[in-house]
Amino acid sequence: MTAGIIGATGYAGAELVRLLSGHPEIKNLKLSSVSYEGDAIENIYPNFLGRVSGRLVKAEEVIALSDVVFAALPHAVGEPFAAACMERKIHYIDLSADFRFDDNQKVYNAWYGKTYRYPELHKKSIYGLPELNRRKMKELAAEGSVIIGNPGCYPTGCSLGAFPALAKGLSCADRPVIVNSVTGISGGGREPSRAFHYPECADSVSPYKVGSHRHSPEIARNMAAMASSGGHTAPQVIFTPHLAPVNRGILSTVYIPLSEKWRVTPDDAAMPPSKEIEEKTACIRELYADFYRDEPFVRILPLGLTAATNRVRQSNYCDISVHMDLNGSTLIIASAIDNMIKGAAGQAIQNMNILYNFDEKSGLEMIPALF
Amino acid sequence: MTAGIIGATGYAGAELVRLLSGHPEIKNLKLSSVSYEGDAIENIYPNFLGRVSGRLVKAEEVIALSDVVFAALPHAVGEPFAAACMERKIHYIDLSADFRFDDNQKVYNAWYGKTYRYPELHKKSIYGLPELNRRKMKELAAEGSVIIGNPGCYPTGCSLGAFPALAKGLSCADRPVIVNSVTGISGGGREPSRAFHYPECADSVSPYKVGSHRHSPEIARNMAAMASSGGHTAPQVIFTPHLAPVNRGILSTVYIPLSEKWRVTPDDAAMPPSKEIEEKTACIRELYADFYRDEPFVRILPLGLTAATNRVRQSNYCDISVHMDLNGSTLIIASAIDNMIKGAAGQAIQNMNILYNFDEKSGLEMIPALF
Amino acid sequence: MTAGIIGATGYAGAELVRLLSGHPEIKNLKLSSVSYEGDAIENIYPNFLGRVSGRLVKAEEVIALSDVVFAALPHAVGEPFAAACMERKIHYIDLSADFRFDDNQKVYNAWYGKTYRYPELHKKSIYGLPELNRRKMKELAAEGSVIIGNPGCYPTGCSLGAFPALAKGLSCADRPVIVNSVTGISGGGREPSRAFHYPECADSVSPYKVGSHRHSPEIARNMAAMASSGGHTAPQVIFTPHLAPVNRGILSTVYIPLSEKWRVTPDDAAMPPSKEIEEKTACIRELYADFYRDEPFVRILPLGLTAATNRVRQSNYCDISVHMDLNGSTLIIASAIDNMIKGAAGQAIQNMNILYNFDEKSGLEMIPALF
Amino acid sequence: MTAGIIGATGYAGAELVRLLSGHPEIKNLKLSSVSYEGDAIENIYPNFLGRVSGRLVKAEEVIALSDVVFAALPHAVGEPFAAACMERKIHYIDLSADFRFDDNQKVYNAWYGKTYRYPELHKKSIYGLPELNRRKMKELAAEGSVIIGNPGCYPTGCSLGAFPALAKGLSCADRPVIVNSVTGISGGGREPSRAFHYPECADSVSPYKVGSHRHSPEIARNMAAMASSGGHTAPQVIFTPHLAPVNRGILSTVYIPLSEKWRVTPDDAAMPPSKEIEEKTACIRELYADFYRDEPFVRILPLGLTAATNRVRQSNYCDISVHMDLNGSTLIIASAIDNMIKGAAGQAIQNMNILYNFDEKSGLEMIPALF
Repeated sequence: MTAGIIGATGYAGAELVRLLSGHPEIKNLKLSSVSYEGDAIENIYPNFLGRVSGRLVKAEEVIALSDVVFAALPHAVGEPFAAACMERKIHYIDLSADFRFDDNQKVYNAWYGKTYRYPELHKKSIYGLPELNRRKMKELAAEGSVIIGNPGCYPTGCSLGAFPALAKGLSCADRPVIVNSVTGISGGGREPSRAFHYPECADSVSPYKVGSHRHSPEIARNMAAMASSGGHTAPQVIFTPHLAPVNRGILSTVYIPLSEKWRVTPDDAAMPPSKEIEEKTACIRELYADFYRDEPFVRILPLGLTAATNRVRQSNYCDISVHMDLNGSTLIIASAIDNMIKGAAGQAIQNMNILYNFDEKSGLEMIPALF
Repeated sequence: MTAGIIGATGYAGAELVRLLSGHPEIKNLKLSSVSYEGDAIENIYPNFLGRVSGRLVKAEEVIALSDVVFAALPHAVGEPFAAACMERKIHYIDLSADFRFDDNQKVYNAWYGKTYRYPELHKKSIYGLPELNRRKMKELAAEGSVIIGNPGCYPTGCSLGAFPALAKGLSCADRPVIVNSVTGISGGGREPSRAFHYPECADSVSPYKVGSHRHSPEIARNMAAMASSGGHTAPQVIFTPHLAPVNRGILSTVYIPLSEKWRVTPDDAAMPPSKEIEEKTACIRELYADFYRDEPFVRILPLGLTAATNRVRQSNYCDISVHMDLNGSTLIIASAIDNMIKGAAGQAIQNMNILYNFDEKSGLEMIPALF
Repeated sequence: MTAGIIGATGYAGAELVRLLSGHPEIKNLKLSSVSYEGDAIENIYPNFLGRVSGRLVKAEEVIALSDVVFAALPHAVGEPFAAACMERKIHYIDLSADFRFDDNQKVYNAWYGKTYRYPELHKKSIYGLPELNRRKMKELAAEGSVIIGNPGCYPTGCSLGAFPALAKGLSCADRPVIVNSVTGISGGGREPSRAFHYPECADSVSPYKVGSHRHSPEIARNMAAMASSGGHTAPQVIFTPHLAPVNRGILSTVYIPLSEKWRVTPDDAAMPPSKEIEEKTACIRELYADFYRDEPFVRILPLGLTAATNRVRQSNYCDISVHMDLNGSTLIIASAIDNMIKGAAGQAIQNMNILYNFDEKSGLEMIPALF
Repeated sequence: MTAGIIGATGYAGAELVRLLSGHPEIKNLKLSSVSYEGDAIENIYPNFLGRVSGRLVKAEEVIALSDVVFAALPHAVGEPFAAACMERKIHYIDLSADFRFDDNQKVYNAWYGKTYRYPELHKKSIYGLPELNRRKMKELAAEGSVIIGNPGCYPTGCSLGAFPALAKGLSCADRPVIVNSVTGISGGGREPSRAFHYPECADSVSPYKVGSHRHSPEIARNMAAMASSGGHTAPQVIFTPHLAPVNRGILSTVYIPLSEKWRVTPDDAAMPPSKEIEEKTACIRELYADFYRDEPFVRILPLGLTAATNRVRQSNYCDISVHMDLNGSTLIIASAIDNMIKGAAGQAIQNMNILYNFDEKSGLEMIPALF
């Protein structure tokens, strides 16, 4: 089988090249890049020397020669390629935001500054978060070629962290869910800029786009969907992204207000955690483990461990640890992913595996690197 | 004037040595260290070569020869030194937790596992957060020698970030204040351990002691004090510390639920921030700037800037930026300090300046390093 | 086939666990650890959660149940295990220095402070640098079970960088070969210590053990062996290791004095490189490419590229770039490896592949990570 | 006194602003920037908020209002400003390469691609390495206004490391001096580029411009000058710069071939360092300490310590440690500076102090930061 990658020279594109090179079902790669057309990928990424030698061609050529197409492009340029793939009746997996808001074009317009030029495409597309939409993805694939809107990096990790609590009605709707995320700098992409210039971001931590990051509505939408699937009210969601000097990884700390039933009332919240808090936490951890029992890429950590980005680095895992605050009022979830893998290229491949009924773990069996 | 430093070879102690070496009112330093008694400080910290050459003596000798004493010791060993200083009628500034909970020994016992052996000392001590207690500190100093309980690093930054909102009644008491903090690794001290071994913490972000960090009650107590000073109810507080691979700095993101009066209700929280949100944010920023107008070390950033640890690095500043969430329900404050300076040694010197009626900025005029 | 790993909880041992878990010829792993006997490896390295679940047993048990044994132990404790493997007639691959100096016990004694207790073992062992000894390794394996002394991390990268010049007589013997190496901090192992405590080594570069590092005689011996294989005199070798704040990788810059024939004499060495220098460099690069033509893990970079540790990270490659100094008198080779892979666990697996006549690349096909 | 800074918004310019703000003899700063004319410096560097508030004006205005002018500009644009300062009879300190090669315009032309437009200026200029030219600088200043060519960052550290050996005839001229340097990334300046984009340079070490860096002729010229001052032959010099992921600092490892008299011949160079090597090293260390006895910013480390960039960070020191190789043939010097301070802005201020007969340490008394 031949996989095509449009936009192969950005970070997500190059990570797709690297991962698909080791996928047991993929025999050939076709790569395109507007910026480097005609050049060889190993000249742009010398890591590939002696391993991946495809010449970069036009997107049209990639589509014509591939059995599945991945697009890792800037926002708002992928629709024509999606259309071409649908015409050729091959699956199209889009890593931009273009197919993430197909239920709500107004939101897409407002945050990405673009309107849909091929509105009919957005009826056959699906948001590709397997833990939310796996069944629908398989149903669509059974009917014909599918467009996948691959999730944003931030929404992936924190949505997975909140899903069990929302589906099972642990949260109360009168207080917001707060998502505090810290990302590594590869999340900013390959283009140099002042913010990602080494001396400006090394040895520093800071939030950015506070109260105005465009992943906010995607996160809120995912959480609403999961809450509603369990018959519960959609929560208000607050999202704040931060930058820290690591190459890869997103750590999301998710604060979920507990409903009456799940709350604990300690005698004195100024004292260390009570036995009751510990027991309730253990109980919620069980519920989380149960919820994700069959998921190949979600690991609910044993009590006593805390999610950390270096334990999922270079892998497709999402690690989740379950905690409760001293007041007994709020569930605190820590969720860690590799932003380039589960947060981008790995999840895209997981989606391909689902569409083709491959083993969902095919090509994604990397054990996290120790460092 | 001679300043004594007990525990001079830990990180906070050594930072005191460095900063006090440049303090215009301090002519001599007397240094002690249990671990390195008899050795010279420049053998432990070669940074000091040719600059600080004091031999490390016993704590008793330091106390006998100094006009003011700083103690940068492990918790629960400083009381006898404080007692000795009181006897000599000199000020004693303690960087451990031993004098931070003088109003609530039960909390100190529970979190630090120790009881007070000199209970009377805790009546003449004061919690040394200048922005909260400056006036009381000066009053006490006018009466005689004073014991200062220098604040914890985390409590300093986030308390300053929340104070104006709490004092002015912006927050509503029926939802918790959430403090999400990220610290640099010097916060863990000088003793090697697995958690701070380079390959284990470089290139990674993770929370730790979630729902069980002993700075939690100190933070809650500070916020309660400030709320009550304005006649408002003490908020519930949730605190989660994180570790990121930077040497210095703490970034706290503080989520403060807004009271009815300060809330904004956008038409659609899935859309980018409304003009109304922006106006309210500007208005709250003004209120913050006003609150801290006369503070020498708190900088309220202009709108459009976000607090970052690298902009206060190597200085005694606390930078604060003011934001609001998309739902208009929550004030988001970002607060950055250098954990070793405003979060430890610098604040201790600021306290000394206050006790002695020196210019509060003496010895603390470092402009933040560019990198 | 079952592979045993003695010392599985150190960094090199854990990297062996990770890599062998993906090796197509290895079906089972048996792991031992003195420090954590009875515990499960995923409790020590949570990266392995859900992936590697072996309980840690005694070394004797590992040897009894394995078809090949790797030992990643401190120096001077492995001989009895080697003896046991020889008795069981299985190959034994030792990652310590114990079998690197079998031709020169006096050097081993002097640098590692130990004598051989099983001298006869050192007659059936071989230094496992495939690019130097592949043929002999295969010959020995044809005769029976073999002990491999897996090379040190520093000697691997710089030896490969110097070999072609030494074998082909490019160097002159009357000036020393200088090896200036920079290593990542995982090279110091898993035990916490002041030198590798994050705040002590982050954001800093320094040499260490200048003129006294115990890899010096190993490097000199390798270079002598290669020079002599080409009929040339052994060079004097100077080796200086440095520490830089990266997790993985060794970059060695090797200065090789050129013999008369290969030297270029520019009109003015204060001027930019002459055409003659560029041509000679290209010519030597060809010679290097030719020398390593059939090596699966050595990549001679195209002219214009320079070896960098991030282009071999997480892979078994050694990247080499070829340069000449402005005076035309000295060949400058830059060589980059991942110290944990080609410098330790990967090379050990490469050696296993050679002994068993597996495809030499089995289990080692990782494309370098982009970041 | 008013100091003017032309090019105040580059890294070296901003570091000058920061350091001069604390200089006891400087009362006012006048700042210019082509890129940000009319803006305020604290908008470009928010570190300066509340501390430095100068509006950025034209270079001409800066010159007209200042008593001394620093220029931190790109190469080849400063001559007219130097001319204007000479006309106003004020000192001009240039941090670019424009006045570093006044004895050899041909070299400047070849490496910087420019010719001198004001050749007469280059007769009244002097290369501002105080440890080489202090006396001449003072003589020139006694006669009138002076142009200083402030040294390059690399040449500063390695020249200081080699000077005593060269002046005292320890080196033999028939083998090259090899300078292997590693720099932090601030050395690349403030403009974003791929090479200094965080994910491309974090967690990696690599050489660059091997055999072709334009600091090579400056280093060779300095070493020749010092050798000749002692009546010795100029050495051949080989220089290789490397990049490591640190913000600040240059570590240079300098290999100096010892002349017959200073060499040691060990019985077996494969064995650990002999007593004779240790004694000779101690003796050379004494010679170094003696050479720099009166220098305020050069620290010769005690035996047993090795120069490290984190021990000079944020200071004007050059730390030097003295070592010898196992073969006894080569002196190995490790030299560490902060590239932004002793390697740029600090040295420029040291030069101003010399020209004005201020205490040479004025404004430069920073003790190195612990981290």
